[in-house]
Amino acid sequence: MSTHGGPLTETYDDGALLERAAHLDASDPLARCRGLFIGTDTDLSYLDGNSLGRPLKRTVNDISAFIQDGWGGRLIRGWDEEWLELPQAIGDQLGRAVLGAAPGQTVIADSTTVVLYKLIRAALAAVTDPARTEIVLDTENFPTDRYLVEGIAREEGLTLRWIDADPAAGVTPEQVKEATGPSTAVVLLSHVAYRSGFLADLPAITDVAHSAGALVVWDLCHSAGSVEIDLDGAGVDFAAGCTYKYLNGGPGSPAFAYVNSRHLPTLRQPVWGWMGRKDAFEMAAGYEPAPGIRGFLSGTPAIFGMLAMRGTLDLIEGTGMAAIRAKSLDLTAYAVDLFEAWLEPLGVQLSSPREPERRGSHITLDHPAFRNVTAALWEQDVIPDFRAPQGIRIGLSPLSTSFAELYRGMAAVRDLLRP
Amino acid sequence: MSTHGGPLTETYDDGALLERAAHLDASDPLARCRGLFIGTDTDLSYLDGNSLGRPLKRTVNDISAFIQDGWGGRLIRGWDEEWLELPQAIGDQLGRAVLGAAPGQTVIADSTTVVLYKLIRAALAAVTDPARTEIVLDTENFPTDRYLVEGIAREEGLTLRWIDADPAAGVTPEQVKEATGPSTAVVLLSHVAYRSGFLADLPAITDVAHSAGALVVWDLCHSAGSVEIDLDGAGVDFAAGCTYKYLNGGPGSPAFAYVNSRHLPTLRQPVWGWMGRKDAFEMAAGYEPAPGIRGFLSGTPAIFGMLAMRGTLDLIEGTGMAAIRAKSLDLTAYAVDLFEAWLEPLGVQLSSPREPERRGSHITLDHPAFRNVTAALWEQDVIPDFRAPQGIRIGLSPLSTSFAELYRGMAAVRDLLRP
Repeated sequence: MSTHGGPLTETYDDGALLERAAHLDASDPLARCRGLFIGTDTDLSYLDGNSLGRPLKRTVNDISAFIQDGWGGRLIRGWDEEWLELPQAIGDQLGRAVLGAAPGQTVIADSTTVVLYKLIRAALAAVTDPARTEIVLDTENFPTDRYLVEGIAREEGLTLRWIDADPAAGVTPEQVKEATGPSTAVVLLSHVAYRSGFLADLPAITDVAHSAGALVVWDLCHSAGSVEIDLDGAGVDFAAGCTYKYLNGGPGSPAFAYVNSRHLPTLRQPVWGWMGRKDAFEMAAGYEPAPGIRGFLSGTPAIFGMLAMRGTLDLIEGTGMAAIRAKSLDLTAYAVDLFEAWLEPLGVQLSSPREPERRGSHITLDHPAFRNVTAALWEQDVIPDFRAPQGIRIGLSPLSTSFAELYRGMAAVRDLLRP
Repeated sequence: MSTHGGPLTETYDDGALLERAAHLDASDPLARCRGLFIGTDTDLSYLDGNSLGRPLKRTVNDISAFIQDGWGGRLIRGWDEEWLELPQAIGDQLGRAVLGAAPGQTVIADSTTVVLYKLIRAALAAVTDPARTEIVLDTENFPTDRYLVEGIAREEGLTLRWIDADPAAGVTPEQVKEATGPSTAVVLLSHVAYRSGFLADLPAITDVAHSAGALVVWDLCHSAGSVEIDLDGAGVDFAAGCTYKYLNGGPGSPAFAYVNSRHLPTLRQPVWGWMGRKDAFEMAAGYEPAPGIRGFLSGTPAIFGMLAMRGTLDLIEGTGMAAIRAKSLDLTAYAVDLFEAWLEPLGVQLSSPREPERRGSHITLDHPAFRNVTAALWEQDVIPDFRAPQGIRIGLSPLSTSFAELYRGMAAVRDLLRP
């Protein structure tokens, strides 16, 4: 055992691990993307792109130009010339680049919470069988999803049926099969679990839920931009997600909503606003929803918040999601290797699947010291996030994270845990 | 009568009107503010600050610095360090500078439509008397307000009672008195009517509604930042408004919500999200609202969209709302003078109150040719907005509009209407 800050044991070889990072970076077909992001030329190790993605460098110029020339120059004319269509135009781009959604089914709007509220209420409105009184979800679903359906169940007189999910994994098709049946109205699940990073089998679960006669709402917050998604192919009913994680839209950028085209003709969401009305600027009496996905809109679209994500969508259209997923798998595999070499011997637990194909783009590590460790890491510009009671999430954003950066960050965790 | 583009009649004197603009600009105590806004050194005449305010020049720097150093540099740490508190911090500043609201009652969130949905649902939840089954509103209320309560009434099994408002004015306390009674649950009105610019008597109407045992929700979209408001003083229950008009927050910047402190202990809004939960980052099971106005939040706050409005709030704290209101009165009075001199003889109608103290900061003019006239005006960088079927709104933003700019714009309207 070393007393001068060197390795604790000789069961691993730091040199080989570092060399592997260099090799992975050198052979990474997406390596050129990293330099497009602000701050990637520093020693900061950012391991939380699963929570808030880094800004692209072009975002500063895009937004400055927008303030000066768009907002400042076109002024109110901008609404007619471009902005009114942005929720659908960017929605369609997102559908094409990321979601596997044909045009006309995706829109940018509100926050994830509000979008989920509107989608779930819309889904429930589409359920005609009065015997279907249950909303199925799992205990590892993201907090806002859980809170939201508690509120909806209360106001609609429905029951929540909880799937007891493995905290280190997530929900299986078998569990969904067991939980659904003639009482199920809606199933709400996360595609990638926010804590464990478990990647649910979206097509199989969607099929299982449909076999039970239920509608499915998928929360794609932790999967959009990190794993390949084919909503149309899987026949998903509804989906929502945020754009500030792997899509780099900036803190609090608006969410997206997907409504499968088969539900659009009868879509009825509860927040009736002017932007979702047919012929909005006639400002006529009486609400009549705009046809198609437009009818999902309520208030004035957050144009500012939509601008940054366009840069990332352009980038993804260039690289393709397959390359992003491939790098994500390499990143999480390398993170697990570092964990096994350095952290497992120090008593850290991996609370994520060991099988790469069952993971999204982050892993969670548990250790009783991690609340304090996270604070110390942040001080030294190593930035994972902390999830109570004792988890650190290592989030790896394929477009901006390098293997060397991951090495540095994990080494800092190791150094802080050493006795 | 002139045939070379000069005045049509001799009943007014262009020279004197122009001289008056110069005099008003020269003696305007807020004149120094105009130069702080982008584009005010051009000949463009912007008469639509009531719809979308101009950006401050500092906004470019503020937002570039935020992307580079805040989002890009602090990354996820920014939430802990500052951003999580921004909805309340900026809400309090707005309350202090603009709304007459003591701290802890105002928050920035969502869109106006979503905020109104949550407020009205919260107001209805606070009504315990089952005989109160009516929502009172007026026919000149803003479209999103009208559509929204249609939807809410439908889902809650309530009735809408419509006050038939004068399209060239708005709702009087007498009309509200007549419309309210033991059946009234909630009254929803606009402080300044979006079309006529009529300034409702907020304190008197609030008293009348309270006397009938009803709760009042005020839509302040067209008054926040243009007229003096004292929500606490008037004992208003709930209020909402947007921040992209006189507060210059940018297209689609988030809305604000005001909940009087007496309602906060029992506040129950329907969209239960993680940001409104007690100890949000514990991510614990079961929703329990955060105490106070924080419990009104649902999803992740739109940080980007909040940054621009801070510049205007700082400015307003320097000038005070009294000076802004005084200039607004001068601006609309001068606009009415120009109308009388130039446009009334051409068959244009003023669809706004003649008495200055009954107006907000815009007026509406009607003429059958105005749809086409607006398109032609926009081409020549004179920018009012058009409201079907035949209205032009002349919106005057006291911090950024000059009298000379107003003169130029109204002259362009005149020139396009001339035979």
